[in-house]
Amino acid sequence: MKIMIIGASMGLGRALMDGLAQDGNTLYGVARRPPTASSKPTQADWQARQHWISADLSDPQAASELAQACPESLDVLIYNLGIWEDTAFSPDYDFLSQSDQAIRRLVDVNLTGALLAIRHLLPHLLRSTQPRLILTGSTSGLRQSGRPEVAFGASKFALNGLADSLREGYREQGLAVSCLQLGYLNTEDALDVPLQTAAERGQGETIPVHDVLTIVRSLLQLSSASFIRELTLPALRDPRF
Amino acid sequence: MKIMIIGASMGLGRALMDGLAQDGNTLYGVARRPPTASSKPTQADWQARQHWISADLSDPQAASELAQACPESLDVLIYNLGIWEDTAFSPDYDFLSQSDQAIRRLVDVNLTGALLAIRHLLPHLLRSTQPRLILTGSTSGLRQSGRPEVAFGASKFALNGLADSLREGYREQGLAVSCLQLGYLNTEDALDVPLQTAAERGQGETIPVHDVLTIVRSLLQLSSASFIRELTLPALRDPRF
Amino acid sequence: MKIMIIGASMGLGRALMDGLAQDGNTLYGVARRPPTASSKPTQADWQARQHWISADLSDPQAASELAQACPESLDVLIYNLGIWEDTAFSPDYDFLSQSDQAIRRLVDVNLTGALLAIRHLLPHLLRSTQPRLILTGSTSGLRQSGRPEVAFGASKFALNGLADSLREGYREQGLAVSCLQLGYLNTEDALDVPLQTAAERGQGETIPVHDVLTIVRSLLQLSSASFIRELTLPALRDPRF
Amino acid sequence: MKIMIIGASMGLGRALMDGLAQDGNTLYGVARRPPTASSKPTQADWQARQHWISADLSDPQAASELAQACPESLDVLIYNLGIWEDTAFSPDYDFLSQSDQAIRRLVDVNLTGALLAIRHLLPHLLRSTQPRLILTGSTSGLRQSGRPEVAFGASKFALNGLADSLREGYREQGLAVSCLQLGYLNTEDALDVPLQTAAERGQGETIPVHDVLTIVRSLLQLSSASFIRELTLPALRDPRF
Repeated sequence: MKIMIIGASMGLGRALMDGLAQDGNTLYGVARRPPTASSKPTQADWQARQHWISADLSDPQAASELAQACPESLDVLIYNLGIWEDTAFSPDYDFLSQSDQAIRRLVDVNLTGALLAIRHLLPHLLRSTQPRLILTGSTSGLRQSGRPEVAFGASKFALNGLADSLREGYREQGLAVSCLQLGYLNTEDALDVPLQTAAERGQGETIPVHDVLTIVRSLLQLSSASFIRELTLPALRDPRF
Repeated sequence: MKIMIIGASMGLGRALMDGLAQDGNTLYGVARRPPTASSKPTQADWQARQHWISADLSDPQAASELAQACPESLDVLIYNLGIWEDTAFSPDYDFLSQSDQAIRRLVDVNLTGALLAIRHLLPHLLRSTQPRLILTGSTSGLRQSGRPEVAFGASKFALNGLADSLREGYREQGLAVSCLQLGYLNTEDALDVPLQTAAERGQGETIPVHDVLTIVRSLLQLSSASFIRELTLPALRDPRF
Repeated sequence: MKIMIIGASMGLGRALMDGLAQDGNTLYGVARRPPTASSKPTQADWQARQHWISADLSDPQAASELAQACPESLDVLIYNLGIWEDTAFSPDYDFLSQSDQAIRRLVDVNLTGALLAIRHLLPHLLRSTQPRLILTGSTSGLRQSGRPEVAFGASKFALNGLADSLREGYREQGLAVSCLQLGYLNTEDALDVPLQTAAERGQGETIPVHDVLTIVRSLLQLSSASFIRELTLPALRDPRF
Repeated sequence: MKIMIIGASMGLGRALMDGLAQDGNTLYGVARRPPTASSKPTQADWQARQHWISADLSDPQAASELAQACPESLDVLIYNLGIWEDTAFSPDYDFLSQSDQAIRRLVDVNLTGALLAIRHLLPHLLRSTQPRLILTGSTSGLRQSGRPEVAFGASKFALNGLADSLREGYREQGLAVSCLQLGYLNTEDALDVPLQTAAERGQGETIPVHDVLTIVRSLLQLSSASFIRELTLPALRDPRF
C-alpha cells in the first residue's frame, strides 16, 4: 500500500512510519523537518521505501503544495499532526494565560491544517480501490475526559466531526474514516525498544507506540467490507477511561 | 441579570436578545452590524435594556476590544455566532469544491472566534455570583448526524470540547457551561409571530426560535446548585434525531 | 394535559406530581404504595387533579393491569421508576457481593419494567395530539461517569437505547422521547422548601427537585415542532460532569 | 492464554473459537448446545485445545454452575451471547406486537445473563496477570443508529454501561474491558471461506467474521499498559455509520 503520514518525524508518527515500512508498504512521511536520510549502503530495504516530504501545515500554501508532492494514488492517509498548549497536561496549564496567538496557531495546525490537507489529498485517496483515512484523535476528544486544555480539547473533538462528515460525504465512494482516540502515549520508547520494556516504563499510565502500531496494522488488514470508525485506546491505568 | 449575546442581530440571537430583555434582564448584543437603534419616544422599556456592540469576531483584535466594551461583571455569556459553507444543507454542497479561504474563515469564526472571545470575556463572567456560559451548538456536532458539511460539522463538534474543558477548568469557580445541540431552526418567524404559526410553518422539520427561548429561560431559572451541561433539541420530524 | 408518572410517590416523582398538578394538569401517579389521599374538605384544587394508581412494576402482570387503569388517551408519560443496589453510591459498594437475586430484581424493575410499561401504555400515548415520553435517566447512564455500580449503570444506559429506538419507530407518529440524565438529587427537600434553601443544602453537590421540575415544565411548553431528545443536568459541583 | 467465549457455537462466536485456538490458545466455549466433538484421530491440534461447556444463560442457576466448570484462572472472557426480537432487522418488526414474555426473555439473556455470568466469572478473570473482558456490542448500542428494535437496542446500550462501570470498579486490578460495537455481520461465511469471498458476499453491507477475528487478535496482542475500551466496526457501506 501507499501510505502517507502527516506528522511523521517523531513519536507515534515515526513509529508508524517505520513499522508500516517494515511490513512492505511504501511510506510518504510529511514533517516540518524530515529526519536526515541515511545514505549508508547498509540501509535496510524498508528504509528505501520511506520517502520524506517537507511541509509546514500551518503555512497557508502547504496543503496544495503537499498535494503536488503526493503520488497520484494513495491508499492510506494518516493525519497524525497535533500540537498542544505549552503548559498542557501539567498543573501550570491555565486557559486565561494563553495568548491569542498561541490559541490561533493551535487551531490552525490541529484543525484548519487537517481540513486543508485532507481536502487537497482526498482526490488522491479516492483513486485507491480501498481508500482509508486515519485520524490521530485523543481521549481529550471525548466527553468527561477530565482535561482542562481548552483549545487542544476543542481541536480533538473537532476531528470527530471531521471524520463523521467525511464518512457521510464519501461513503458511496467507499472511504473508510477511522478516528483513534488515544490516551497518553509513551513517546520515549521507539519501536526498537522491546514492547515489555516500553510497557513497564509508564507503570500502566502511558501507551507504548508499539500498541498503536498493532492496532493500525489490524485496521489495514480488514477486508474491503468493513472498517473501524472509531476506537478508544487508553492506558490501562488511566483514571478516567 | 447582565447577559451578553454574541451573534445577536438576527434569527435566534435576536429572539434571545428580545425575549430575555422582556424578562427584565440587561442585554448586550454583539454583532457585525447591530440593528439601527429605534429612537422613537414610544420605545418599549425592554428595548432600553438592550445595548449593542459592534464587533467582527473574525478580526484578530475583536476579542480584546470586546472585553473592553463589556461591563465589569457579566452573568451570562451566550456564544451564538456561527457561519456555514455557502452550499451547506443543500444538495450542492461538496467538500472538494470548498476554497481554502472559505474553510479557513469558517474555522476562524466558529472556533477561533469562540475561543478568543471566551478567553477575553471569561474574567468578566467569573465576577458573577452565578456565572453561565451558553454555547449554540448543533445536531451537526453529534455523531451519526448524517450531515456531510465537513468544516461546519468539525467546528460544532469542537464546541463540545470547548464546553467540556472549560467546565473542567472552572468547576471550582462555579462556572456552568451549557452546550445546546439545536436542529434546524425556523429563523423566518420572529418572536412576534405566534408560536402556533411558527410551529406549523416547517411541518415539524424546523424549530421555532420561541422554543429555544423557552429552554434558555428555564436554564436561567435553575438554582445555583445545578446546570444543564448539554441538551439536544431537534425538530420533531427530524429524520436523524 | 393528562400526565402519568410511574414512580410518583416520593422524591422527584412526587415533586413532579405536585408541581405539574399545580400547573392545571391532570396527574395519574403510579406507585407501589400511593400516599394516603387527603380527604380534608380544605384539599386544594390541584390535589383533586391527582389520581393514584397502585402497581408494583416488578410484577409480571403489572404493565397490562396498568394499561387498564390508564385513561383512554395520555399526553405525557413520565417513567421515573428506578432502584439501585443496596450499597450503591457508598464506599461499601462491591459488584462481587451482589446477589443474583438483587441483580435480577434491579434489571426487572429498571429495564424490563420500563419496557413492559411503555409497551402497554404507548397506544394510549399515541392517541394524544402531542405525545411525549419522558424518561428519568442518570449521569450514570453516560460514559466516563466514574461510577462503579454495574447493574444500575447498565440499566441507565439501557434507557438511552430505549429512547433512541422508540424515537426511530414512532417518529412518524410524532412521539417525542426525552431522556433526562440527572445527577445526584436532593430528595430531602420537597417543593414546599424554598428553592434557595434546597440549593444550599448540598453545597452544590445535589440538585433540588425544583430544578428538575423547571426543566420538565419547559419541555411541556415546547411547540409541536420540536422536542428535547436528551439533556444532562448535573449538580454544579459534580466533579465528573 | 485461557479464553472463555460465551455464545460460542455459531457465527462470530464459532469463528473466534476456531481462530483463537489456531493461534495456540486454550478455548472454553459455552453454548446451549455445543457442537458434537469430532472424535476422529485426524483432529487438528488446535481442536484439542477447544473445550465445550453446555449452559443456558437464561436459566437462573447457569452462572454459578458455569463458574464451577470454569478453570481456576482465566485470561480472557468474551461475552458474545445475544438474541434479538423474532422480527428484528426486518420491516415486520413492531414494538407493540412484542409479547411481554419475549421482551422479558431478551432482557434476561442479553443483560441479566451477562451481569450474572460476569459476576460469577470475574474472580477467575482477576486471577490472570492480564485480565481482559470483551463484550460483543452492536452499532444498535450507539445513538442515532436508526434502528427501531427497542428491547435489543436497550440491551446493547446496557452493555456499554456494564463495561463502563466494571472498568471503574476494577481499574486498580488492571481489568481491561472492551466493548465492540459491531455492525451487521456476515455469519454465513465461516473462517474456512476465503476473506475475499466473504467480503464480497454482502457487497459491503455485512462484515466478515474474519475481520472481527483480526481485531480481537490485535486486542490480545496489546501490551499490559493499554487496552481498547470501545471500538465501532461497521460495514463499509452501512448507511448510518
